[in-house]
Amino acid sequence: MHRFAEILAHINVVESPAAIVLSDVLSTNIARMQAFADAHEVLLRPHVKTHKCIEIGRMQLAGGAIGITAGTIGEAEVFAAAGFDDIFIAYPVWAVGSKAERLRSLATHTTLSIGVESREATDALAAAFGDRVRDVSLIVEVECGARRSGVDPRDAGPLARYASEKGFRVEGVYTYPGHGGVQGAREQAARDQGAALARAVSSFTSSGLTARVVSAGSTPTAEFSTEPVITELRPGEYVFNDGDNLALGACDESQIALFVAATVVSAQESGRAILDAGTKALGREGDSERGFGKIAGLDYRLGKLNEYHGYLDLPEEGPQIPIGTVVPVVPNHVCPVVNSFDELTIITPERTIESWPVSARGRLS
Amino acid sequence: MHRFAEILAHINVVESPAAIVLSDVLSTNIARMQAFADAHEVLLRPHVKTHKCIEIGRMQLAGGAIGITAGTIGEAEVFAAAGFDDIFIAYPVWAVGSKAERLRSLATHTTLSIGVESREATDALAAAFGDRVRDVSLIVEVECGARRSGVDPRDAGPLARYASEKGFRVEGVYTYPGHGGVQGAREQAARDQGAALARAVSSFTSSGLTARVVSAGSTPTAEFSTEPVITELRPGEYVFNDGDNLALGACDESQIALFVAATVVSAQESGRAILDAGTKALGREGDSERGFGKIAGLDYRLGKLNEYHGYLDLPEEGPQIPIGTVVPVVPNHVCPVVNSFDELTIITPERTIESWPVSARGRLS
Repeated sequence: MHRFAEILAHINVVESPAAIVLSDVLSTNIARMQAFADAHEVLLRPHVKTHKCIEIGRMQLAGGAIGITAGTIGEAEVFAAAGFDDIFIAYPVWAVGSKAERLRSLATHTTLSIGVESREATDALAAAFGDRVRDVSLIVEVECGARRSGVDPRDAGPLARYASEKGFRVEGVYTYPGHGGVQGAREQAARDQGAALARAVSSFTSSGLTARVVSAGSTPTAEFSTEPVITELRPGEYVFNDGDNLALGACDESQIALFVAATVVSAQESGRAILDAGTKALGREGDSERGFGKIAGLDYRLGKLNEYHGYLDLPEEGPQIPIGTVVPVVPNHVCPVVNSFDELTIITPERTIESWPVSARGRLS
Repeated sequence: MHRFAEILAHINVVESPAAIVLSDVLSTNIARMQAFADAHEVLLRPHVKTHKCIEIGRMQLAGGAIGITAGTIGEAEVFAAAGFDDIFIAYPVWAVGSKAERLRSLATHTTLSIGVESREATDALAAAFGDRVRDVSLIVEVECGARRSGVDPRDAGPLARYASEKGFRVEGVYTYPGHGGVQGAREQAARDQGAALARAVSSFTSSGLTARVVSAGSTPTAEFSTEPVITELRPGEYVFNDGDNLALGACDESQIALFVAATVVSAQESGRAILDAGTKALGREGDSERGFGKIAGLDYRLGKLNEYHGYLDLPEEGPQIPIGTVVPVVPNHVCPVVNSFDELTIITPERTIESWPVSARGRLS
């Protein structure tokens, strides 16, 4: 029996769907990434968008992380309110109106750095902070092949120079190698990332500036992100891992820390069972070919999702899964799953159960 | 200028992404569906999974709805606590442990009916309610071609008989014509639904029972759900409508009441703008071909989403959308969008702004 299923048998989960986290796997994942960062002499600044959970952020800091990365002002606010004192919002924030106010307030509560990738956003931040531009650091986002946001690395220095002239401390550069999230692309994406960051650092130098922070993503590419230019890693998903990272080879099955406990609520057709986990629990992450999640330890996939119905494909022949059975679903992409739940159910090796709030859930702006 | 864009220009939304609802369109949508139900002499029991909002549920009741439909026990609890006194959980609930307790408690606070589609779930409900089986009504779910949950309509009577013998009041049958959610299939799905419900009613009669409630879905099929056998409609999405219903022909553009205000945060490439609405705001509802949402009044689609990034495809030539612009995104599927937000921003025709909590957001179990 797969470990998840065995745990389900012991803890008798009925409030399904529920996001269950194995605390020992979580701890090991946190320690493993920290050890990797330490061994390569880079700092770890985990992205909290994955877990959105104060307790897990504290575990990361206790393990040696130097601070956290947030994706929205709202995430940063939740963690700052809980005492996190070094936060990087790795996003090209558009700082006007109430967002300007919120950023000013945040900067008085925590050491704050913010991503920037345009002169316009720099101007907005300058207007937002006024004579307090020294309260915040900026980090220039560069593009490395993922075709997300970020300037061409050769333009990093000129943008940093522009921001410096507005009075900002510009600490360095960051990028996100999102193109490493497809099969076989991790290593190349990490190389692209290293090259882009190196070019960005040169561009800083040419502009008479120093990039003290040279920050790299991501869980799938982390193990290849070993170029000496890199000073910091910002992975997020490694705390839990998921089906996507498993398929990419970025984790093994024993390193998956989170599953969704779901109950078989309908078994009308042979070859199929309907679970009470649909898109509102799992997100519509996947497609009909690869499925939208699978049962841990078995080759049974969710082939289709409605909002509250997950359609589990079973072999036409052989044992079906009886109605009422609680099964462990490994999601494809863990981040939207966590964001679906108000709390995580934490199971220790001694089978004690705790509930940790997903405190930054839904803090989208 | 599209009405949404005009409103955005007036109200100066900066806390993007935000779910904006036009109260006049919402009211008109609620009144239109009620008028349709009244004209066809069927009762309206709207599904609250779409809006999860007490205020909107109250508008529906004030308009003439006889009660509400919920998809989870948690949704029912939120509405019961707000005084809603007639709730149908249209889901094959597996009533064990704490869920059994919660259902018993619910039944003391509201007139409660629950979907059932197996003897096993009926047994669990019988065990849950014990000598209080008369506190709850059951409604038998039948399958009508969507291949979701539900018994074959010919088995509705025998299952109802089985439940009656356990002491339950079995009020009738319901089905969901989910196969009407694809292009050109609405009318046929509604016909399938009518036929399945008629067969189920006959099956009740053959079993010596009467189906007092004969309940039909859904927004896309509602206008064709006029078979005399039907006594009740359970549409959900009609309050807001969305891109999916527009594409199906189930609404026109003036009937879309909700959009997501999103800010252009990056404009590095011509032919593209990056918005601050990604999967955590919009869900991954759509595909790269049809997109994941579009700008109201323009033929600009979101071709790709990350968690906090929406990639808006623009014409390569011609005017781009400047960074900092707030644009109205019409989502493909509105239900997961509402579930992403803690609150709805309600705009009246006089441009006053209210915030309504999405009180049942994330109540998945």
